[in-house]
Amino acid sequence: MASDLDSRWAHTRGYSTTDLLRFRAGDTSDMPDAVVYPASHEEVQNLLTSAAEHDLAVVPYSGGTSVVGGLAPTRRFITVDLHRLDHLVDLDEISRTATFQAGVRGPAAEALLAERGYTLGHFPQSYEGASIGGYAAARSSGQSSAGYGRFDQMVVGLTLATPRGTIELGRAPMSAAGPDLRQLVLGSEGAFGIITSVVVRIRPRPTERHFEGWRFESFDAGLAAVRRLAQDGPLPTVLRLSDEVETAVNLADPDVLGGGSGGVLAIIGFDGPYNQATAGVLTAAGGENLGEGPGETWRTGRYRAPYLRDPLLDEGALVETLETAAFWSRIPALKAAVTEALVGALSATPPLVLCHISHVYETGASLYFTVICAQTDDPVEQWRTAKRAANQAIADAGGTISHHHGVGTDHRDAYGAEIGPLAVEALRAVKTTLDPDAVTNPGILLPEGD
Amino acid sequence: MASDLDSRWAHTRGYSTTDLLRFRAGDTSDMPDAVVYPASHEEVQNLLTSAAEHDLAVVPYSGGTSVVGGLAPTRRFITVDLHRLDHLVDLDEISRTATFQAGVRGPAAEALLAERGYTLGHFPQSYEGASIGGYAAARSSGQSSAGYGRFDQMVVGLTLATPRGTIELGRAPMSAAGPDLRQLVLGSEGAFGIITSVVVRIRPRPTERHFEGWRFESFDAGLAAVRRLAQDGPLPTVLRLSDEVETAVNLADPDVLGGGSGGVLAIIGFDGPYNQATAGVLTAAGGENLGEGPGETWRTGRYRAPYLRDPLLDEGALVETLETAAFWSRIPALKAAVTEALVGALSATPPLVLCHISHVYETGASLYFTVICAQTDDPVEQWRTAKRAANQAIADAGGTISHHHGVGTDHRDAYGAEIGPLAVEALRAVKTTLDPDAVTNPGILLPEGD
Repeated sequence: MASDLDSRWAHTRGYSTTDLLRFRAGDTSDMPDAVVYPASHEEVQNLLTSAAEHDLAVVPYSGGTSVVGGLAPTRRFITVDLHRLDHLVDLDEISRTATFQAGVRGPAAEALLAERGYTLGHFPQSYEGASIGGYAAARSSGQSSAGYGRFDQMVVGLTLATPRGTIELGRAPMSAAGPDLRQLVLGSEGAFGIITSVVVRIRPRPTERHFEGWRFESFDAGLAAVRRLAQDGPLPTVLRLSDEVETAVNLADPDVLGGGSGGVLAIIGFDGPYNQATAGVLTAAGGENLGEGPGETWRTGRYRAPYLRDPLLDEGALVETLETAAFWSRIPALKAAVTEALVGALSATPPLVLCHISHVYETGASLYFTVICAQTDDPVEQWRTAKRAANQAIADAGGTISHHHGVGTDHRDAYGAEIGPLAVEALRAVKTTLDPDAVTNPGILLPEGD
Repeated sequence: MASDLDSRWAHTRGYSTTDLLRFRAGDTSDMPDAVVYPASHEEVQNLLTSAAEHDLAVVPYSGGTSVVGGLAPTRRFITVDLHRLDHLVDLDEISRTATFQAGVRGPAAEALLAERGYTLGHFPQSYEGASIGGYAAARSSGQSSAGYGRFDQMVVGLTLATPRGTIELGRAPMSAAGPDLRQLVLGSEGAFGIITSVVVRIRPRPTERHFEGWRFESFDAGLAAVRRLAQDGPLPTVLRLSDEVETAVNLADPDVLGGGSGGVLAIIGFDGPYNQATAGVLTAAGGENLGEGPGETWRTGRYRAPYLRDPLLDEGALVETLETAAFWSRIPALKAAVTEALVGALSATPPLVLCHISHVYETGASLYFTVICAQTDDPVEQWRTAKRAANQAIADAGGTISHHHGVGTDHRDAYGAEIGPLAVEALRAVKTTLDPDAVTNPGILLPEGD
């Protein structure tokens, strides 16, 4: 256990822009009282049991990459840093599953699998910091989701330590034995307990990879093309479409898009051989192949964006992101409504609103927005106002409050409105059963009980 | 409302062999007191609310095809027949989703979609009787699951009427806004309320279909081949592998397998063009293409098996099925253990135990067993003993108690053991929240509360 100031400060809150601003302001109000480093499921289990006895709240911590206030409970707490749970416990080559302890970070998981010739294929923007347990707890989705699926689609089993004891789930890939309780734990963000290990589906490591850029006349034209691929295939491994503003802002070299003629940029990537049929669908939909250049530029920079916010804050800029998902028929109106809400709420500091699609399904897709504007005197409140307007626009236009960032504390009210009071009650009943003393991540996901 | 004897008798229990035997014995012990026919979500909702006020238990009924005692609650009850909820409410061609009321049966759903050029692609053996709501409540899986997925993978939204009110779920294909509560309702078998409508993913109706048979030297050889397709593709729409006993019993014409040389039969089917790459994988794995004959034979007879049990009972034969699923590495030992358990428990009437694989995933597969033996004087008890032995073998060998039949009352104890007492408590907390007076399907899925 560590209770020195450095350890506590290093485990304070997450990685949203609001978090960064509060770091800068020296705000210590949500600093943990101590940090503990359990090394086994049993130690986590004992910790939860004894925390209940000592009336302590605990916050599970692995990567510290939450951008929705997922590490900021409503009471004083100790942080449970899981990084010593760093083992690949089992690799079943017949079933193509791997059992990881929760604290294994993305790059470590890939390295452990690579030794045996496999990959997980999960590359979220938080990849360099986030861990297996966090991916599971927060329903992460990575940049290769078109080919590998979301993290919650990769999970076939998990172990959850709760203050009342341990739950082990996942006897088979799929089952009709009752509700899929794995899907009740995935996305529970520590509110029911601490995930200590996860069994994931793995795949052979590809021997080649290809990335390339495509140009479409407009976001609408690109949208039709990516929908076509999502519904009729063949899907690439990576599929990403920027809108006009994002394309213009992100492209250092406008010539890439054909002599400054505008349009929007799509990125496709293949783990394995290049698929001509995919390219054929894009061409038929009006796409122009820009070759490997833009693809490689995206690939090499793809984990960089979050780190850019700090220097931009120094320059007086406010940069933050938000995201949603919806069924295809609602996507255009949803995109327009969120953009309009952000522009309206930030009219005193006219913002650039960038948008892209990076996760597609047969029935719908995600929308990811980046907002850039000048800071006011109170940038925390400035963003809160903008975010509130965006959340309302998402709800009104029929989107979900989060496609892959999660609920945390930031989205708690919007989440409650999205699923309705009766479903919130049902979730609270699960929490009260597994965590009667509100030990684990109190106030995350659900408002703290009466 | 109907309370005449014919209506009540027609809505009594389900379609397991034990159910058939009890029909023959004139057993009326689990006959409903009355049958009601609501025509809207609101009528179902009002019914549940007023049932609580009048201390009545209700059982949702659509197809009546449960084979696990899913319609036999532990108290007197009225049956809620949902067949008037028979509308296609919405078809969103952009998102490729269809909203069906819960009482639409399989063939009606396909007919409604066919008018618009679409298909659901869900063809369980209960297809002719079962309905959309039942598919959802019981986590159904159909014969085209290799191509279309399980029913719970097709569902993107649903409406649940509970005694406490209505819950609507599904704003997007996927979300990180908390646990996936759709997956908590799917498989809840009426224990939390009555599903009144379901939003499902649909696909364009194929313009051609192909079925063909393949021969492998042994089940193990066939197993390796289907695993290869499940893990590396390309998967056909239908993929099914019989073991040696099932192949020998089901093939009227042994010449089909090449002059009586034995081996096992696999069936593959394509919705759409024939895929040579799939055939190439089977050939490389030692398969011999038997052409369309066996494929068409299977296709034309595929809904017939359940109806054959009745005449076989007349002949003094006991015929029943059971199923499980597990990760690939456990499949061979699981198959051997279940077979051994059945043969041991039925040693007084030596059984034939047939087995096939009909649902595959990257990480595992289902095993479906058919048992045929002579009846004893007490066939109900005879089967109960055999089933108990099989359930124990499934648990010991690491399988799930059901891949697609569900829990009902028959699997309740085994299900509780599978997920553990703490998970059962969590589910009971959900039930108590949504159904505090134990109105809806009491005793199904979970033991009735104290």
